[in-house]
Amino acid sequence: MSLERFSFNQATAKYWPLPDLVAGCAAAGVPAVGLWREPVAEYGLARSAALVRDAGLSVSSLCRGGFFGADGWFDDNRRAIDEAVALGAPVLVLVCGGLAGRPLEGARGQVAAALEALAPHALAAGVRLAIEPMHPMFAADRSVVATLGGALALATRFPVEAVGVALDTYHVWWDEQVYPLIAAGGERIACLQLADWVLPLPADVLVGRGLPGAGCVEFGRFLRATTAAGYTGPIEVEVFNADLWARPGQEVLRDTIAAFRTVTTEAAAPLTGECQP
Amino acid sequence: MSLERFSFNQATAKYWPLPDLVAGCAAAGVPAVGLWREPVAEYGLARSAALVRDAGLSVSSLCRGGFFGADGWFDDNRRAIDEAVALGAPVLVLVCGGLAGRPLEGARGQVAAALEALAPHALAAGVRLAIEPMHPMFAADRSVVATLGGALALATRFPVEAVGVALDTYHVWWDEQVYPLIAAGGERIACLQLADWVLPLPADVLVGRGLPGAGCVEFGRFLRATTAAGYTGPIEVEVFNADLWARPGQEVLRDTIAAFRTVTTEAAAPLTGECQP
Repeated sequence: MSLERFSFNQATAKYWPLPDLVAGCAAAGVPAVGLWREPVAEYGLARSAALVRDAGLSVSSLCRGGFFGADGWFDDNRRAIDEAVALGAPVLVLVCGGLAGRPLEGARGQVAAALEALAPHALAAGVRLAIEPMHPMFAADRSVVATLGGALALATRFPVEAVGVALDTYHVWWDEQVYPLIAAGGERIACLQLADWVLPLPADVLVGRGLPGAGCVEFGRFLRATTAAGYTGPIEVEVFNADLWARPGQEVLRDTIAAFRTVTTEAAAPLTGECQP
Repeated sequence: MSLERFSFNQATAKYWPLPDLVAGCAAAGVPAVGLWREPVAEYGLARSAALVRDAGLSVSSLCRGGFFGADGWFDDNRRAIDEAVALGAPVLVLVCGGLAGRPLEGARGQVAAALEALAPHALAAGVRLAIEPMHPMFAADRSVVATLGGALALATRFPVEAVGVALDTYHVWWDEQVYPLIAAGGERIACLQLADWVLPLPADVLVGRGLPGAGCVEFGRFLRATTAAGYTGPIEVEVFNADLWARPGQEVLRDTIAAFRTVTTEAAAPLTGECQP
């Protein structure tokens, strides 16, 4: 695949200053970036928006809203929607938050209530909320929404243009139900992110993801399935990896582009053997 | 709850010699133990069986068969069934194995094929195979069967007395589907194990489980659900925890009994608020 659908998520080169990242992407022919609220705020919202726009890049998504168990969640998520508008990001990724001392059903119920409260604002702003099902090892502390099935059950209560899902291979690759659910819920895919599952898990499991192709995720199968389900939008590579973060941003971008090309070329190849969807 | 349904799984006091463990359990009024093949082999199969029998204990389960991606899996699992017979264990827990270089569907297909091959022997021996869905963070290296839904889909191809599931709270607590599946598939529960999800995850996630009550699993809800689904068998406590393993077995047993009493008393309490199943 060419780079036409590629988006470089800023978290992959966490410590690369935004102007350098934007210049690097533009020079490499990368058409889009996924941005994070904290570094954008640090550089300045309007300044970040202008920087990206002037470089000819689009913003595929803004990370992240959510954490609905925290004090002030409503105002914070309203602000996040406004920031997405300012950046021209069509999607706000939601990490819905963990138990925060509540039973699982209570925490999940609050996610539903929070979406009720936020969906009208998102719709009015033209920003789609994307519920990210996170790997179940994060269910207690980061996201009580732990599967694509759980995310779709929440999203489908709302208009398709208001609430979708953010599908990250790292979080969902193991799920027996993920392929039928992609096929059934393709119109809800608002954001597609690639990262690989690599072993052993590091001491901090949050930062042990691999570049696509480094681990055991079947990207070919995954990308064929999302394409067959009708998703033709950007494909972000978003890799939280401590070793990667220690390297110069320009190198990280180069390796990320190479990884993207490899796994998307595999996706385009004829279907073979047991990897067939 | 009294200790009537309690079973002390040997893995909770990993380094406690079998004769001491058996004597300790008998003295404490524990009616059953869950055994592991390696320490049983080390002490001697016939000798272990006599030791447990003479102490008046029953064996609730034997851990573990499975790992169907490994060379020699068929003979090894046949032997495991025979060992369960020798010990009087009605259940052989199966940890089905990880990817072992295969795509996910291929590995899952081989689990189904292995069950086909083993079920007649299990049935003839009067030993029920219990597929253990493991937490998805082990999907790549330990069990491609990652949810109760996946385990039930495999088990229900076989007679109910031949193949069931081993349900461990640690592995399934986060699952949006687990309660409806328990309600629908109660007759397939062959083994019930308790362990708690505690944070932070340690460097080796395999050995970071908590005694029941130490973390965020809702044991009351869980036990009410399994009882309502018709499961009235033993309730094992099985906790892999490096700190626990470093302590004297007698203390571990004492604390495990206390934890069991606490969470099963909670289960008997009136249903309240958001924890209601």
